[in-house]
Amino acid sequence: MIQAIAWHNGEVQFLDQTQLPGEEIYVRTQHLAELEEAILKLKIRGAPLLGIAAAYGVLLGVQEFRSTIRTIFVEKFYETCNRIAATRPTAKNLFWALERMKEVVRLNTTEDTTALFDTLVREALSLHAEDKRKCEAIGKFGAKLLPKTANILTHCNTGALATGGIGTAQAVITTAHAQGKNISVFADETRPLLQGARLTAWELMKARIPVTLITDNTAAWTIKTKKIDLIITGADRISANGDTANKIGTYNLAVLAKEHNIPMYIAAPTSTIDVEIYSGEEIVIEERSANEVIHGFTKRIAPNDVAVFSPAFDVTPNRLITAIITDAGILHPPFLQSIQSVMQ
Amino acid sequence: MIQAIAWHNGEVQFLDQTQLPGEEIYVRTQHLAELEEAILKLKIRGAPLLGIAAAYGVLLGVQEFRSTIRTIFVEKFYETCNRIAATRPTAKNLFWALERMKEVVRLNTTEDTTALFDTLVREALSLHAEDKRKCEAIGKFGAKLLPKTANILTHCNTGALATGGIGTAQAVITTAHAQGKNISVFADETRPLLQGARLTAWELMKARIPVTLITDNTAAWTIKTKKIDLIITGADRISANGDTANKIGTYNLAVLAKEHNIPMYIAAPTSTIDVEIYSGEEIVIEERSANEVIHGFTKRIAPNDVAVFSPAFDVTPNRLITAIITDAGILHPPFLQSIQSVMQ
Repeated sequence: MIQAIAWHNGEVQFLDQTQLPGEEIYVRTQHLAELEEAILKLKIRGAPLLGIAAAYGVLLGVQEFRSTIRTIFVEKFYETCNRIAATRPTAKNLFWALERMKEVVRLNTTEDTTALFDTLVREALSLHAEDKRKCEAIGKFGAKLLPKTANILTHCNTGALATGGIGTAQAVITTAHAQGKNISVFADETRPLLQGARLTAWELMKARIPVTLITDNTAAWTIKTKKIDLIITGADRISANGDTANKIGTYNLAVLAKEHNIPMYIAAPTSTIDVEIYSGEEIVIEERSANEVIHGFTKRIAPNDVAVFSPAFDVTPNRLITAIITDAGILHPPFLQSIQSVMQ
Repeated sequence: MIQAIAWHNGEVQFLDQTQLPGEEIYVRTQHLAELEEAILKLKIRGAPLLGIAAAYGVLLGVQEFRSTIRTIFVEKFYETCNRIAATRPTAKNLFWALERMKEVVRLNTTEDTTALFDTLVREALSLHAEDKRKCEAIGKFGAKLLPKTANILTHCNTGALATGGIGTAQAVITTAHAQGKNISVFADETRPLLQGARLTAWELMKARIPVTLITDNTAAWTIKTKKIDLIITGADRISANGDTANKIGTYNLAVLAKEHNIPMYIAAPTSTIDVEIYSGEEIVIEERSANEVIHGFTKRIAPNDVAVFSPAFDVTPNRLITAIITDAGILHPPFLQSIQSVMQ
């Protein structure tokens, strides 16, 4: 079992995902700055995993102040939360995790900062353990939706590398496979950072689930000629009406699903749902550096100074989504109602 | 003006497109084997250019036999045609050009093989010159379809690098720009071999036409958020009913055009039209090596031995095509009729 992140006595250990599939390098750090950089450079990525990293990041940011007075500790705590919140804007889980940590500080009014720190550690560990359980629940709920034989198209990476457990969309795939269903997967390579090629293909091959890699632009032709039965992806943020921000290219796939009359499933823990915003129009879409496109693979692959539009995510309108698979069950349209009922 | 290929007294000179945009390397060769390799490795690519390369390749293959007897010359001629026909299966233009050369041999019954060779040289040069004129005609016909201000999405490369002149889809863009229309372009990078990033961006920047590079999976989001007015691509083979084989990802864009209610234009010379086949189902789609996906950019970007599905082309059904812009005018649906009328 791959463990993408862990907390060990004052240190965060994480797998540097930018080195995969070439090398499995685990990094240990006590420094918030190193964790921030890891998040920015996508050494740590995937919405649920970003939530866990945020919680552990809070611990890194405050641990040296755990013997100070409460005023200083709390000041450093909020400073840390702000730094982490400024890394990547789209994944709801990161902000959700910071909220969970803030709630601990708000509810705990003790002057004993060591005790407060210990409570924060317990909260972060419990948040991680919860995510693991949520992945399993998503896997079980989602597997019910899959036919006995399913040829699945997926995008980006939604496995153990993206979460604190067995994944979201990928949990559905691996759970159905473990149940004996006849599962085969086509994985979009997912430019610019190739999470599909580097991570999903690697994870599924490790799990001995048949996987075929395609370039992103092969998706339409694959759906048509390889008879894809369904598409399933993860999510970075889901608004109250079900509009879903996820890795750039997801909206593309949702349009293709509609054209080919196959289901488009989104799988995500409830911590990805943002009921404070009504629709996808309010979701902030991170734009990544042009460099990731131009110098994506050591060698320059485009003219210097070419203009680049490189959003990290897009928003899939709710009308193109068949169902949202969460740890609390499967949500069907109209999502405004089904999301509300599960988030209450 | 970029000249992707030329015939100079017994030599073919071509620009090695795999080295762009880093280096502009012109290669001169007298050897058919080197030209074959250039076609296989996409140093020379683009359907109309492949037609011209095929014609010049015939000259390379037979020139050392131009002082032999007719039987030997003709035998070598057909042997050469077969070798060239075996390089890449999808672009109609390559086979169309070989047919043109064969017609010369069929019609010419002289025993003077030197004279026959000279006739073949004239035919190849004239075929090249015709392609140049066809590009201009496509540009003029197509420019009429563009509004005064047009935000255009294109795929792969269809410029001077893909043809014997100013291009096909790109001719439409550059002609409209030269007419004073307010043109801006979004270019798909076009995995796996990145013709959009490496070639189209480079050509349009040289022509000072505003161009923004996107990864292929950003197309849907770009159409929606950057308000793309129309999509235009080239073609590798168009069947009698208008179904169009073109660079993998074109079908994807056609589905997106329909979803967003914008026109999907195909631009190609009539030499790309294959009236001998009724529909796209009869078009042979070349599959490229997995290596181009896995080792696309010097560094390995996927696990070793991962299964890869890498078709070089896909087929866009005629119902998703708004119009086909040819050198003989603009063809509208129903294409079975409009294609027939222009090909007679």
